[in-house]
Amino acid sequence: MSISLTKALEIVDAALAKGREMAFEPLTVAVLDAGGHLVALKREDRSGILRPDVAIGKAWGALGMGFGSRELGERAVKVPHFMNALMAASGGRFVPVAGGVLILSGGDVIGAVGISGDTSDNDEICCLAGIAAAGYVGQTGFRPPQ
Amino acid sequence: MSISLTKALEIVDAALAKGREMAFEPLTVAVLDAGGHLVALKREDRSGILRPDVAIGKAWGALGMGFGSRELGERAVKVPHFMNALMAASGGRFVPVAGGVLILSGGDVIGAVGISGDTSDNDEICCLAGIAAAGYVGQTGFRPPQ
Amino acid sequence: MSISLTKALEIVDAALAKGREMAFEPLTVAVLDAGGHLVALKREDRSGILRPDVAIGKAWGALGMGFGSRELGERAVKVPHFMNALMAASGGRFVPVAGGVLILSGGDVIGAVGISGDTSDNDEICCLAGIAAAGYVGQTGFRPPQ
Amino acid sequence: MSISLTKALEIVDAALAKGREMAFEPLTVAVLDAGGHLVALKREDRSGILRPDVAIGKAWGALGMGFGSRELGERAVKVPHFMNALMAASGGRFVPVAGGVLILSGGDVIGAVGISGDTSDNDEICCLAGIAAAGYVGQTGFRPPQ
Repeated sequence: MSISLTKALEIVDAALAKGREMAFEPLTVAVLDAGGHLVALKREDRSGILRPDVAIGKAWGALGMGFGSRELGERAVKVPHFMNALMAASGGRFVPVAGGVLILSGGDVIGAVGISGDTSDNDEICCLAGIAAAGYVGQTGFRPPQ
Repeated sequence: MSISLTKALEIVDAALAKGREMAFEPLTVAVLDAGGHLVALKREDRSGILRPDVAIGKAWGALGMGFGSRELGERAVKVPHFMNALMAASGGRFVPVAGGVLILSGGDVIGAVGISGDTSDNDEICCLAGIAAAGYVGQTGFRPPQ
Repeated sequence: MSISLTKALEIVDAALAKGREMAFEPLTVAVLDAGGHLVALKREDRSGILRPDVAIGKAWGALGMGFGSRELGERAVKVPHFMNALMAASGGRFVPVAGGVLILSGGDVIGAVGISGDTSDNDEICCLAGIAAAGYVGQTGFRPPQ
Repeated sequence: MSISLTKALEIVDAALAKGREMAFEPLTVAVLDAGGHLVALKREDRSGILRPDVAIGKAWGALGMGFGSRELGERAVKVPHFMNALMAASGGRFVPVAGGVLILSGGDVIGAVGISGDTSDNDEICCLAGIAAAGYVGQTGFRPPQ
């Protein structure tokens, strides 16, 4: 199963609402299906022109390796050459910093959300808010939350 | 001036509503700003995994040359080598068939919408419906409509 | 739902058995999941070094547009510039000739199989034999078989 | 001489059996011939979508330089700019971490196996188990084992 457009939009809209509530910088929010393909994207006014690729890359990287991009960011500090290789292998669709979160339904990965615009920690807060609003579980690290 | 997220979403939603009204195949709709960068994208369930790139490529091609992708498609029949060169020059973000329409406001190009999913003629119908619903003028060819 | 490794291997092995039964040229068989990512691939001895990319490209193209690559091949004759654009947009993962067949389960696309090695018609015969052996339905054209 | 499909499958299946025996994470296993082209690949269910490219990249990198990817990983720590250049030069098919092992037969390199899914050390364990099961010698570093 992969995420539907209806549910993807619930995630995007709740993530953007969280960003406005917290007065974060303008955000770009992307939801990808389990295969790494765009289902929905919204870029707020004044969000930079690279933000869509960054948001997509965070989500894609999470799907690519099977764990959230926060974990990828921690590994990038320890083994930068490996993360560089993954950037190259993925054709640039791999952004290893927090803000790319797997979407779990019943233990299965059904997609991922990526956000770019504020700090990566704040981006992640909005990812999780969006996923929770849609009734799914978000995974930011190596293991699903218990 | 470039298109806002609010107006981009009006275009996307009206385009999708037109597609459902006409019982077209599942559609992917992308709105790009005047710089060719994504503002909003929605992919309906069962729309193929290359559709986002095709929708973006139609809109990007229109912005790239400054006229609607219907015109690009007609030129592709006459000068295919030129269009092939543009595909290569753009890194693959150039899809010269109908369904990529410039968004005009007061005579200025403020963005473009691209749609992929049904025949290119039908895709274009939805582009125009979306642009009209948002109160803008759509340009499918070489010259703005009079 | 996407195809499992177990079922993908049933398809690959039955396709290769068909090829040997028919005394076809050495084949390369690839099965992709619904997102266009490799699940299983086998290349027979003396099958050329580009064959993996061709087999993958046939299957990927089918998933990309949502119909079998036989249909894509027919369209490539009518609108070559469009197919060229899809090759570029997909980064070369788009091979519009017969031999890329969607795998349907209960009406849903759960993956695709691509074969390269003999004529494209013969490649397709093996795709269909493999899909049938695994208990699924193969779609070679624009519409699912009735 | 290059590895046959029959022997490549022996390696893949023994590597996957080792992974199940050790209760490793879901693995993707790729075997390339001496020319760096895929012979066989299997991706276990729940193995991430970038894993095929990572597994192929480890094996390709080993073939590319003529020694196992463990050695490449050690060099990447000392001369990261050189490894970055190799990633770029290879078009992204170069992943310098353990888990890409050359396959030697009578002292000749006849292919390479790459695995991605668990830690790189564990991936390498499965590479070596697969190669040994097929009756070949695996080379993880700069020199063939004595």
